[in-house]
This record gives sequence, C-alpha cells and structure tokens, in this order.
Amino acid sequence: MVFPRNQWYVAAYGEEVGEELLARTICGEPIVFYRTGAGDAVALADRCVHRRFPLSEGHRDGDRLVCGYHGFTYEPDGRCVAVPAQTRIPRTARVPVYPVVEQDSLVWVWIGDGDADPAAIPRAPWLDAEGWVVVRGMEPLEARYELLVDNLMDLSHETYLHGGYIGTPEVAETPITTSVDEEAGVVRVSRRMKDVECPPFYANSTGIKGRIDRWQDIEYQPPCLYLLHSRIAPAGLEPAPDGDDSAAFHAEIVYGITPSTETTTFDFWMVARDFALDDPEVTTYLAESNRTVVMQDVVALNLLEKVIATEPEGYQELSINIDTGGLAARRLLQRMTDES
Amino acid sequence: MVFPRNQWYVAAYGEEVGEELLARTICGEPIVFYRTGAGDAVALADRCVHRRFPLSEGHRDGDRLVCGYHGFTYEPDGRCVAVPAQTRIPRTARVPVYPVVEQDSLVWVWIGDGDADPAAIPRAPWLDAEGWVVVRGMEPLEARYELLVDNLMDLSHETYLHGGYIGTPEVAETPITTSVDEEAGVVRVSRRMKDVECPPFYANSTGIKGRIDRWQDIEYQPPCLYLLHSRIAPAGLEPAPDGDDSAAFHAEIVYGITPSTETTTFDFWMVARDFALDDPEVTTYLAESNRTVVMQDVVALNLLEKVIATEPEGYQELSINIDTGGLAARRLLQRMTDES
Amino acid sequence: MVFPRNQWYVAAYGEEVGEELLARTICGEPIVFYRTGAGDAVALADRCVHRRFPLSEGHRDGDRLVCGYHGFTYEPDGRCVAVPAQTRIPRTARVPVYPVVEQDSLVWVWIGDGDADPAAIPRAPWLDAEGWVVVRGMEPLEARYELLVDNLMDLSHETYLHGGYIGTPEVAETPITTSVDEEAGVVRVSRRMKDVECPPFYANSTGIKGRIDRWQDIEYQPPCLYLLHSRIAPAGLEPAPDGDDSAAFHAEIVYGITPSTETTTFDFWMVARDFALDDPEVTTYLAESNRTVVMQDVVALNLLEKVIATEPEGYQELSINIDTGGLAARRLLQRMTDES
Repeated sequence: MVFPRNQWYVAAYGEEVGEELLARTICGEPIVFYRTGAGDAVALADRCVHRRFPLSEGHRDGDRLVCGYHGFTYEPDGRCVAVPAQTRIPRTARVPVYPVVEQDSLVWVWIGDGDADPAAIPRAPWLDAEGWVVVRGMEPLEARYELLVDNLMDLSHETYLHGGYIGTPEVAETPITTSVDEEAGVVRVSRRMKDVECPPFYANSTGIKGRIDRWQDIEYQPPCLYLLHSRIAPAGLEPAPDGDDSAAFHAEIVYGITPSTETTTFDFWMVARDFALDDPEVTTYLAESNRTVVMQDVVALNLLEKVIATEPEGYQELSINIDTGGLAARRLLQRMTDES
Repeated sequence: MVFPRNQWYVAAYGEEVGEELLARTICGEPIVFYRTGAGDAVALADRCVHRRFPLSEGHRDGDRLVCGYHGFTYEPDGRCVAVPAQTRIPRTARVPVYPVVEQDSLVWVWIGDGDADPAAIPRAPWLDAEGWVVVRGMEPLEARYELLVDNLMDLSHETYLHGGYIGTPEVAETPITTSVDEEAGVVRVSRRMKDVECPPFYANSTGIKGRIDRWQDIEYQPPCLYLLHSRIAPAGLEPAPDGDDSAAFHAEIVYGITPSTETTTFDFWMVARDFALDDPEVTTYLAESNRTVVMQDVVALNLLEKVIATEPEGYQELSINIDTGGLAARRLLQRMTDES
Repeated sequence: MVFPRNQWYVAAYGEEVGEELLARTICGEPIVFYRTGAGDAVALADRCVHRRFPLSEGHRDGDRLVCGYHGFTYEPDGRCVAVPAQTRIPRTARVPVYPVVEQDSLVWVWIGDGDADPAAIPRAPWLDAEGWVVVRGMEPLEARYELLVDNLMDLSHETYLHGGYIGTPEVAETPITTSVDEEAGVVRVSRRMKDVECPPFYANSTGIKGRIDRWQDIEYQPPCLYLLHSRIAPAGLEPAPDGDDSAAFHAEIVYGITPSTETTTFDFWMVARDFALDDPEVTTYLAESNRTVVMQDVVALNLLEKVIATEPEGYQELSINIDTGGLAARRLLQRMTDES
C-alpha cells in the first residue's frame, strides 16, 4: 500500500478511546486503541505475535491486553509478559506500539518509522475551546482518501451535490484564489462571495434574514487535516480595522482525512461555531444538516470508487480553474508518499 | 475487454428511453440514454470529462445533461457548454456520443469507431407490425454473453431445462440441420419435428388438441440478434403451394444478446405471435410462461459462469452434432472480435 | 491449488449420501455423491463433459445421472450412455469416477492419481462400535484447512477461546510432550493434567463432583484424520495394572479436516463417549456444548483467514513450546504436498 508515511493521522475522537478495545486500520496498519487506568490513550499493533489473532478480539487485564486465542498478554508498551505453558517469554515477543497524542479533542497516531514529533501535529483549537460549540461525526468511506481530498478542495460541488443545504448558485459561479506554501506544506483556497443568497443552512442557524457576504477560506495541511474557515455576515459588514469580527458568524469546519486501506477512508467531520452557543435547537439542526451533507458526499465518493474500479488504464481527467487547489494538494501528497 | 466491436447492439426497448436518464454499460462502455424534447434517442458516454462522475446521476436541463457533482453541462451532441466559475469552456470538454437508431421497437447503439451504417442493423419486423402481438422482457445475466449464445443455438436443452413448458422428449431426439452463410455472417439451425407431442406452452395458447408438426428455424446474426422462427401446426398440415401458411401458428422469438461486461449480459427476449391476437389471457399466459423459461436459463447460465470462474485453465468441453450451430456461432464471434 | 494429493479424505457422513445428489468440492475438485439402489456410495466429477454443467443439478434415472442441461446420461462408473439427438456416444464421453470407501460411519474419497489403497485409510472405530455413543456435526469453514490443523494441535487455546466450556486455566498452564512418527506420518501431543478443576462440560456429563485427572492425547494422521483421546477420572484414579481403565470416563474426539478450496474447509467433528450411554440428556447436552465450542473455533478461524487476506507478504509468526505439534504437522503436510 502506498500512503504518505511518517505522518500524524487522526485515529479517533478522544471519547471513542476508553475501556473498550477499539480496532481501526490506518494506512493499512491494523491498530487497537484503548485507554489505561491512568487515562493515557494506547495504540498497539492489532495482531498477536504468535498466530496473528487480532488483539482487539481479546480482553483487558487491567492495563494489559490478553489475546483471545491463546492468552499471550501484553503491556501497554507492547512487551509480551505471559504465554501459555511456559514461564520463559521469548525476547522478541513484542507488538509494535504507535506514538499517540491527544490534542484538540482528537487522538492522533503516528504512522511511520521516523521521529514522531508532537509539535508537527496541525492544530484545530476551536474543537476544544471556550466560546465554541461543536457538532461532529465519522463516516467510513468505501473510497480512497484522495477522492475526499478532491471533494473538499473544490467547493463548487456544493451547488450541485448539496443544493438546498449549503449550496447556492453563487458558490459555483465565484472564482477562487489559490496559494501553496511549499515549505510548510499548506494549500489555501479562498472564495469570497459578496452580497449573495444565504443558504438555508446558515439562514436557519444564524437568524440572518437578508443577503450575506460569505467567505470560504480553505487551509489544507496534507495529508490529514483540512480546515474550512467559514465567515457569514450581513452583506457589507466588514471586520473592524482592529481585526475585531465579532459581529459576523464563524464556522470552523474541520475534517480529519484518514486513509484506512487503499480504497477506504475514515471521514472525521467536525463543525465548530461561535454563535447560538446556548441554543440546542441550532446544535441539533446543524448536526443533522451537516450529517446529511456528509452523506451526500459519501454516496458520491463511494460511487466514484466503483467507477475507478472498472475504468480502463490511463483514463484522463480534464481540469479547470476550480481544480487548482485540488491539483496542488495531489502534488504535495504525491511528494509525501514518494519521500516516505 | 474483448467484444466484437464496430457492431450494432440492442441497448434498450424504445419505451425504456424517455425523460429519465437510463444508464447501461454495453461492451464495457458506460452509456447514458435519454430522449430529447423532439423525440430523438440520445446516447452519451456516462462519465463527466472533469472527474468521471456518471452523468446518469445528474439531471436534465431541457435537452442538456448537467453533471450532479460540479455542474458540467452537455448538449446532446456531447459538447460541454458550461463549467463552474469560468466562462471559457475548454475546447476538449466533450463526451463521446454514440450513434443510435430506433427500429423494430428497439434502440440500437453502435459500439466501435468505424462507420455506423444503419443499413447494417438486422431486422425483426414482427416486433412492430400489424397482425402480431408481442410479449417481452429483459433479464440481466451474471454470465458472459457467449453462454447465452451457446444456450440459444442448441435447443435440445428445452427438453431438460424447460420440461413442462416448451420442452418435450422429441426436441432432444430430433436431429438438426445447420448451415452457415460466411459472407452474410448468419448461422441457421433447423429442427423439423413431425407428428409430435404439443407442449403445454403451445397447446394452451393455440388451442390445438392433438399432435403437431413443429418447426424451429434458428437464424442467428452475430453478435446481437437471434431469431427463432417457430411454426406450430396440426400434424400433417403443410403450407399451401403458393406459400400461404395462414392455417398454421407462428411465433417469432427474438433475442437481443448484448454484452455488458466480460461476465454480465443483457438478455432482451421477445415473443411475437400471429394468433390469438385479441385474447389477453393468451398474452398474459405467454408473458408469464416465457418469463419462467427465460429465468430457468438465467439460473443455469449464472451457475455456469460461477463454474467457469473456479475451473482450471485449459478445461476441455466435448461437442456433439447438436453443437454444430453453436460452434459455428463461436467461430463467427471470434472472427468479429479479432477483426475489431 | 496446492493440497496433499494421493490421499484419502472424509467426504461425508454415510447418512448424508443417499437418494439425493450431494455436491461437495474437495481439494478443489467438484464431486457429486449419491448411493446406488444396491447401497453403494458413488462419487463422480460434478461436471458434465459436454458444457460443464454440474451433474448435481440434474436428476437420477435409477442408478444413472442425467445432466439437467442437455440430458447427457452417466452410469455410476462414469461412462456416458446417452446424448441428445444421436445414438453414437463419443468414446471419450466419460466423467472421472472417484474411489470411495465407507468405514467407521464415514465416506472416504481418494483425491489423486495413484493407487487408492483402502488399507491406508486411518481408523476411528469408536464412531461405529458397541459401547459408544456419538454426537457430531459438520461446519463449513471460510478458512484454509491449515488454520484448523493449527487450532487442533494446540489445545492451550481451550482456556481462552472455550473458557466456561472445555477450557480451564490448567489447560494453558500444563506443558505438553510431542512426538513425531516420521515413517507412519503421525504427530502425537500429550497433555496429562493431574488433580485439576473439572470443566462444566465434563462435570455435567460424567457426574464427577470433585477434582480430576485429565488426559488429552492427540494423534494426528495428516492430512485428514485428527483424534483426541480424552480421559477424565476422579483425581488419583489410575488404570489397573492389566490395562483396564473402565472406571474412568473416555471421550474419543474425532475431526475430519477436509480442504474444500484454498481458503475453505469442511470441519467434520465427532465426539464418541463410553459413559452415560443411555442418557439422552447427556447426549443432547454434549451435542449442544460441542457445537458451541466448534462454532467458537469457526468464528476465530474465519477471522484469521480475513486477517491473512490483508496482511503483507512475508509476515512472521512467533512460535513457542506449545506449537511443537502444530509445527510438526505443518512439516508433514508440506512434505505430502510437495510429493504430490
């Protein structure tokens, strides 16, 4: 399998990792996650060294994992400490342990061999900060992660795939500006729409009645973290000269794009907002609407994966201006994959 | 994929092509069919030039097709006339368009690169003529089209697979005569049964009480059109010297054998009759009985495809006299495939 | 496909072979089984010589098989004796016939080309003898037969996979002794537990209240027959000096391990006991409990097959003392496969 390695990936929401054993295959590597009594998230290779039985099918003995087939028992650091019918434990009896960091409500896992520097994990502070409320979910895709990257880098599809939710004609009509920070490895795509229709999605949640200015500022940090800084404001309202923009409404849309196998992906989606913080109806409305939108993408991307599976070699796509960000992202991902 | 190309295939019944978008993969090529406001059937490649999304998942804007992903919009001649966020349309933005002809109630599509001569389409006039009533259907096979050709070229299987419907012992017992018109590319197989049992299928629909003469004259025009001229008459009744045969009963059984993928096929089946024209009970009886017979074949052919999938390389069949027509058909199909 | 050939395999229980046609693929070879009017089990290749239709889909005409597609008819010795529309039968029209022997309530079939010596069939006399009662079943595995061999050669898994049934902590804790008879091709693994807990499985069926001596003596005769001689006795009870052991309880656990395809297996399991012969409640209890235990293995082995399907090439297992018997079995199976 070919993925960008020596990278951090979103493995789970913090709340998904607890007493129960959680099995997830990330970049083709089967991993079992759980949380120790002391509260630390642990990630071990999900295969017993003996006969490859998934450890996630076994049970815990305190902080240890006991294989459900023959009882090989492992510490959170991967060392095997018990095997059946003998007291000597083979020196090589050890499962790989994966570096794990919890940050911004997410459990990040390091896939690779090199130095797992926690400082390299990209940030999404709105997910776990005062003054923000989050709705979120995770959908498993039957599609390669590259299709999700393509999808998110070109929001003109909102008009067609998500009409009636977040799509309006103006999204597809408005040109974008794209920039690539080669050194930092970030792709930025901006679409600033002035005096446009307010989609039901935002009309219902912000209470704005009339036309709006709508900004979509994408910041993709390959391979895993995608941010969409979304600003909605009554038409003509600009941020104050001192930068204060508290009169506008902001949604920070975050995706964790985590390859599972070559043709399946974990699609972690989160929407943080700085408005209607105490309104549970808005929370419910945004949770449901966003999930509907995500599922529209899931259906389309799963279909595209099937299309790819049957198409002839050397199929040629045709790209236009809206694809500039997506093509830049592909290039960065290819470089990361080649280097790893 | 290897199919006879530069050939006409039955894509649909005329009534299947209308306002709605109809997706069918023919000879491995995904195609979307619809009918313009002016009434013309249209066939376009079912893949947007941009990101390969199936156009059949989109919607119509008058006679145009709008892709459901990013809104690329196509004329019935394949030209792209709108893309998002820019007015310039790339010159190469065009989906392939397939020649289509409607004839004898069928929509024929040309698969290939050469000259699509409508005069080369074989005829089945009974399907759309005064004095004939038709029952029909289409079954998708999970089997390669060659298995359906084998099946139809050797009707001795009626005795075993379709006993109680169209099969009687005499079908399997009666020798055949086979001829091949190499130039016209037609295989003919005749089985003329004299003074034989009348199967329930025909006893119930013609009203004949006693024994019959039964003719089965196959005329296969590879790759797609198969005709079975079936004559049922009270035993001893011959056509008049002037050729008039109106005292006998005739059924024109027509198959459109259309490869979808290498291991799936569209099985279009039609039965036209020149008797009991105004009797809806006979129509219902023949529709149901024929569908039962077709489904018996479907089950058997789908099973054979599974057998082939697991059998060792170089498996050898054993052929006998009844296979003469089928072997000739295979030879013509192979030649057509090699030449295309 | 690669299996040990020129070997006898368990194809069915005797009672499964009768008037009805029974289709089973053994070592990749599709075979149809039935019983003649005279009572003899017959095994023929399950493919018509004509167009490969499975004969098991046809019907019997006395002791003959009639193909359901075109009526090719075969004698129990494989000779074709009727074909449609001609009286001459091609000399090569003959399906392969497989040597079959019924013994110890089992139908054994010879897979291979060499000399099918019935004397080479390993014995399991308890299955069909006075003084023994048998419960049994057959589960189709979605897993390669080697995984079942591994499973059965290392019973330390009883403690973990079958806890509460036949597993107790002492099974995993007790070391084994292993011996290999290279010439006879037999692997023996013994685990003799003294003064141990009696698992519910045996407490409920023998009526023993206290602690027990428990012997597990495995005798595997690759590729197909696995015997587990199980002795349960009140702690301290030894066989008499003259060998009489009638005060103890014996269970003869027999497995027929029959490869179907490379990744599927027929798991024939049988348990013969020499106690509580007239107690139908014990019979029902053991039938249900054993089936539960077998299904626990089925679930685990099917999961392992899926694990293997996605693991990288060159995956390395780690073996310990308990694996000595399993590794010896693998070695013998590999030699048998290489030689065949």
